[in-house]
Amino acid sequence: MVVVMEVGASEAQIQSVIEHLNRYGFDVHRSSGVQQTVLGAIGVKPDFDVRHIKVLDGVADVYRVTEPYKFASRAWKQENTRIDVRGVTIGGDEVVVMAGPCSVEGEEQMEVTAAHVAAHGATFLRGGAFKPRSSPYSFQGLGEEGLRILRGAADRHGLRVITEVMETAQIELIYPYTDVFQIGARNMQNFSLLKEIGKTDKPVFLKRGLSATISEWLMSAEYVMSQGNPHVILCERGIRTFETYTRNTLDLSAVPVVKAKSHLPIVVDPSHGTGIRNKVIPMARAAVAAGADGLMVEVHPDPPNARSDGPQSLYFDQFVELMQQVRRIAEALDRTVRAPERVSV
Amino acid sequence: MVVVMEVGASEAQIQSVIEHLNRYGFDVHRSSGVQQTVLGAIGVKPDFDVRHIKVLDGVADVYRVTEPYKFASRAWKQENTRIDVRGVTIGGDEVVVMAGPCSVEGEEQMEVTAAHVAAHGATFLRGGAFKPRSSPYSFQGLGEEGLRILRGAADRHGLRVITEVMETAQIELIYPYTDVFQIGARNMQNFSLLKEIGKTDKPVFLKRGLSATISEWLMSAEYVMSQGNPHVILCERGIRTFETYTRNTLDLSAVPVVKAKSHLPIVVDPSHGTGIRNKVIPMARAAVAAGADGLMVEVHPDPPNARSDGPQSLYFDQFVELMQQVRRIAEALDRTVRAPERVSV
Amino acid sequence: MVVVMEVGASEAQIQSVIEHLNRYGFDVHRSSGVQQTVLGAIGVKPDFDVRHIKVLDGVADVYRVTEPYKFASRAWKQENTRIDVRGVTIGGDEVVVMAGPCSVEGEEQMEVTAAHVAAHGATFLRGGAFKPRSSPYSFQGLGEEGLRILRGAADRHGLRVITEVMETAQIELIYPYTDVFQIGARNMQNFSLLKEIGKTDKPVFLKRGLSATISEWLMSAEYVMSQGNPHVILCERGIRTFETYTRNTLDLSAVPVVKAKSHLPIVVDPSHGTGIRNKVIPMARAAVAAGADGLMVEVHPDPPNARSDGPQSLYFDQFVELMQQVRRIAEALDRTVRAPERVSV
Amino acid sequence: MVVVMEVGASEAQIQSVIEHLNRYGFDVHRSSGVQQTVLGAIGVKPDFDVRHIKVLDGVADVYRVTEPYKFASRAWKQENTRIDVRGVTIGGDEVVVMAGPCSVEGEEQMEVTAAHVAAHGATFLRGGAFKPRSSPYSFQGLGEEGLRILRGAADRHGLRVITEVMETAQIELIYPYTDVFQIGARNMQNFSLLKEIGKTDKPVFLKRGLSATISEWLMSAEYVMSQGNPHVILCERGIRTFETYTRNTLDLSAVPVVKAKSHLPIVVDPSHGTGIRNKVIPMARAAVAAGADGLMVEVHPDPPNARSDGPQSLYFDQFVELMQQVRRIAEALDRTVRAPERVSV
Repeated sequence: MVVVMEVGASEAQIQSVIEHLNRYGFDVHRSSGVQQTVLGAIGVKPDFDVRHIKVLDGVADVYRVTEPYKFASRAWKQENTRIDVRGVTIGGDEVVVMAGPCSVEGEEQMEVTAAHVAAHGATFLRGGAFKPRSSPYSFQGLGEEGLRILRGAADRHGLRVITEVMETAQIELIYPYTDVFQIGARNMQNFSLLKEIGKTDKPVFLKRGLSATISEWLMSAEYVMSQGNPHVILCERGIRTFETYTRNTLDLSAVPVVKAKSHLPIVVDPSHGTGIRNKVIPMARAAVAAGADGLMVEVHPDPPNARSDGPQSLYFDQFVELMQQVRRIAEALDRTVRAPERVSV
Repeated sequence: MVVVMEVGASEAQIQSVIEHLNRYGFDVHRSSGVQQTVLGAIGVKPDFDVRHIKVLDGVADVYRVTEPYKFASRAWKQENTRIDVRGVTIGGDEVVVMAGPCSVEGEEQMEVTAAHVAAHGATFLRGGAFKPRSSPYSFQGLGEEGLRILRGAADRHGLRVITEVMETAQIELIYPYTDVFQIGARNMQNFSLLKEIGKTDKPVFLKRGLSATISEWLMSAEYVMSQGNPHVILCERGIRTFETYTRNTLDLSAVPVVKAKSHLPIVVDPSHGTGIRNKVIPMARAAVAAGADGLMVEVHPDPPNARSDGPQSLYFDQFVELMQQVRRIAEALDRTVRAPERVSV
Repeated sequence: MVVVMEVGASEAQIQSVIEHLNRYGFDVHRSSGVQQTVLGAIGVKPDFDVRHIKVLDGVADVYRVTEPYKFASRAWKQENTRIDVRGVTIGGDEVVVMAGPCSVEGEEQMEVTAAHVAAHGATFLRGGAFKPRSSPYSFQGLGEEGLRILRGAADRHGLRVITEVMETAQIELIYPYTDVFQIGARNMQNFSLLKEIGKTDKPVFLKRGLSATISEWLMSAEYVMSQGNPHVILCERGIRTFETYTRNTLDLSAVPVVKAKSHLPIVVDPSHGTGIRNKVIPMARAAVAAGADGLMVEVHPDPPNARSDGPQSLYFDQFVELMQQVRRIAEALDRTVRAPERVSV
Repeated sequence: MVVVMEVGASEAQIQSVIEHLNRYGFDVHRSSGVQQTVLGAIGVKPDFDVRHIKVLDGVADVYRVTEPYKFASRAWKQENTRIDVRGVTIGGDEVVVMAGPCSVEGEEQMEVTAAHVAAHGATFLRGGAFKPRSSPYSFQGLGEEGLRILRGAADRHGLRVITEVMETAQIELIYPYTDVFQIGARNMQNFSLLKEIGKTDKPVFLKRGLSATISEWLMSAEYVMSQGNPHVILCERGIRTFETYTRNTLDLSAVPVVKAKSHLPIVVDPSHGTGIRNKVIPMARAAVAAGADGLMVEVHPDPPNARSDGPQSLYFDQFVELMQQVRRIAEALDRTVRAPERVSV
């Protein structure tokens, strides 16, 4: 921590700040310039609330020198983390595609979707079984029956499963059905949930909160990792800004920033990131071009009649187009997107 | 819902939109001007996802005509809601003050705090027992022992209790100890929690999410009310903006806006709203001047050694000053703030 | 400037950073802890672009220790600046009220407005003569004829004049007609204009830009002051956020923050800050309660037919109500708002 | 314009709103549902301030049905606008690259930069001659001498010139030296400047303001076009959000959104968009992948000693790498980036 004293701070004020720092357990190095004194406080308290010092008399500003996270940082682990999910590696040369509807609605819907996305190169099937929606009057998901349907469709088509867990009480129920636990944007700082999920042995897909800084997002990854689960996949899905034309503003700069600060893989979700079907393909291309390790996209056999998020779900033929286009972008970066099956659908 | 067709939309496109609307169950009124056609769609689906129509060919824009909430709206209930909590009315002429530390840390801390805030006119004691913090390495609260201490201190000094519930599983545990359930900003859209809390019979104190619009906030109130619990108190506590000097930007315009759109009482929390101790008093004054029905402030007997949020907690003498100042402001609006006890502390 | 090296930065990297700093003219103090090295760089370059160091290998972060402004800072001048404008002091105990229409539209409009606002305690008449509007198809102002009308109405009723200058070329034209030059929010970083206005001897009313941080705003004040004009009045008028119900989000925390960082007076404009007529009075009260030195409000004899900003302009009777209410708030803070004339209007 | 009356609005209120609309010159279509009345107001006033109606009693909300701009809209002109600048087309299949330093600093600097960027496929040379900076203590540009140097270097290497005009008074001076007038982000709503530039016959490169919505940006394009100059090129360069790791948040969704709403070409500036040199290449790739018609990038022969924006300027070898990478991305979209000259540098 670095403490900058005000121009004109008195010696008594400086001494008082040093005493406070000592009492909080810091070693202090003092450096006095012509105009100002700067104190370097060295200690081992990553979670110290720097505002304790900021409010003292004569203090101009305080800077946290160490990032509050450790396991999630590039300093802790230099090489990229690669996460193997039943034979598919997230964080390697392949750009992984996760596709499926917002909600699991029934057997038929999941069967045709799984068949289609698998045939065109997706390796994960997504779908929500628990959907507590922003209106209490909307469809709330099929629950465990939805999980069973999701798992069945994925297994029949060689896909891995990713699905959202919304509260601690659901972990045990969902565990046998999923390959990856998704933590939604609204739960990015649900710390009890992060802790419990950190005690499991399955990879965690951590969406960025709507108004979370990159630093806070990595801190949430740290929460999971601090409990012993190192398999965290980050997912950028748009932040809230003043622009209202798109549902959110997809922050693609987060891709190179996360790559610099952390060793964890990062996936982009252009469906939630834009909220508009015909913006999904260009933003999927851009995400891969920015260096994303994967894409999560919503696809539905009949978007106008989807029970949730239909307007941002791709039609089947749009998904084929998306795969063709991102495959070319990936190749321009010497990466790959899985090829479609020979027998075209 | 109002659907505005593009300038130059074809008759076929217009017919197709009308058919879609009919299929979704809407009655349609068509109004064609020289340049553009506007369709009024009337139906009873408050949660319809208007993007279904927005993505159709020839549609320029779609506006939701009815607010998605009902019970929370001023249209549903004209007169202000007044919530009685064991003899204290929230939403009436009195500006109610809720005070106490961020976290319950022990018997002694709560006893002296309760005595002090009660002596100077607070009627509620606040304090957290469960503190899943943004760092996994920080103090996490005393749990049920904390609830017991909080209740005891409040009862000895004639105060009501308000404390936060963080997940569904805690409702039963907390119920006997509290008078009001607080829902924190991070849980404003934890819909399963809102639903369950809506089935209880105790008032709910609903903090605005860090990046929630006023409309989304009222929708969350609707969630609680739709389950049968009409006793919702809203709390503005700052939104996230580009300004970083303050921890958040306290949006005091929310006070008159909420008063116009809803009948529910609104309280302001200047401690979280600014995050800096010496900005709390001026913003508390401003909140009361804007028309807030109450204040929630953090007070601690020894802020530098508080286990959480010390830098934004008031010293005891600052709390006395705050009460004196907001009392004068309340009087300038012909409202009241409870008088201090005769025997000064 | 404080340079924090990464955990694990090599000695060669540290030496290279020190050499760069020396080459840029800084003295360097090195402080090496167990994990990290911190370099304090002391020099006299307030405008040094710290990103030069941030991009060097092995650097984790760089903090600017000194604020980039000097004359505008509280460190430079401890006591509050009071600006006398022909007998009215801005920044003293009186809360000064500046009122009038958005645009000067004609003799009659200005005469009745000046008479009304003067009778109820305003001391400044506002009104725009140049109105380059967001639509090229809207009313663009009366130009010099408007300035003449504005000055005449003000003089007949003992009011001072404040009006906006939009480009360098207008300074000379406007100078004889006004008492205070207003710089609009869109021009807060029009640096050529700030420089030229800084060479004049009349007070400058500097509105905060829609997306300007407080630090950038004070830097713009510095621009004016660096040219020799110390008479800067700051004006908070709302920032852009994700909330759309109000036109902007009035950031009242800026009042106590500016008071701590700077000695300059600060005025609040609740008309632009909210954009909605019936939110102006509560936010005016809140501004005074937060400690503002003045208010700028839009008032019009016939708001529905105003040529600009009618919907946020107060009716005459609303202005009377505003003055009565803010006078009571000011008194609760031991400040004053000028009394209405005996012969009521 | 669509006016939605409140649930429970009285017949008298509805009649009063209709009368107001008639008085403002609108034809009104009334549509009354079970719960609510909706009024369609048809007229030809693109700049009508809808808040006039919003403030009337009984009105719930008002929606502007037509976009306030016309010439800039896709409805007005279906096919993409292609702008020819001395043989290079902006808005066609070629992705155009504009490169050069932030500021023109001298003959040598511009000569080597022009030679280098031309050799690797750029077709425009950029460089600022007037640099009123955020600090009054910084380098302010070479003025007309800078323009002469810029033009000379461009001509010797077959490049076109783009440079910024900061105020109306500079138009005449800059005109003979430039091929394209750049309007900076801070001037996006400098309406007098937009008007005057709209009277010239050279293309205008209009940067998006830091907190401008896409709709406001297109309205500024309209300003230029309404004066008779149809040659507007839009440039996305990042918006201000709560995220502070990058200088701004580059909003790449703006690319497909602008393409849908307007026929004008759009260029992306990843240098200002990120503010960090090593984020420029990935974001340049992403911009092209999203569908941008061009890139503007800052390149400097000696970034650490650049007089402005050095930290976001590319080294020469990084520019070569950028060109190679974006050329491959462009090809994956069946577009082109100009090939490097045979004799490699």
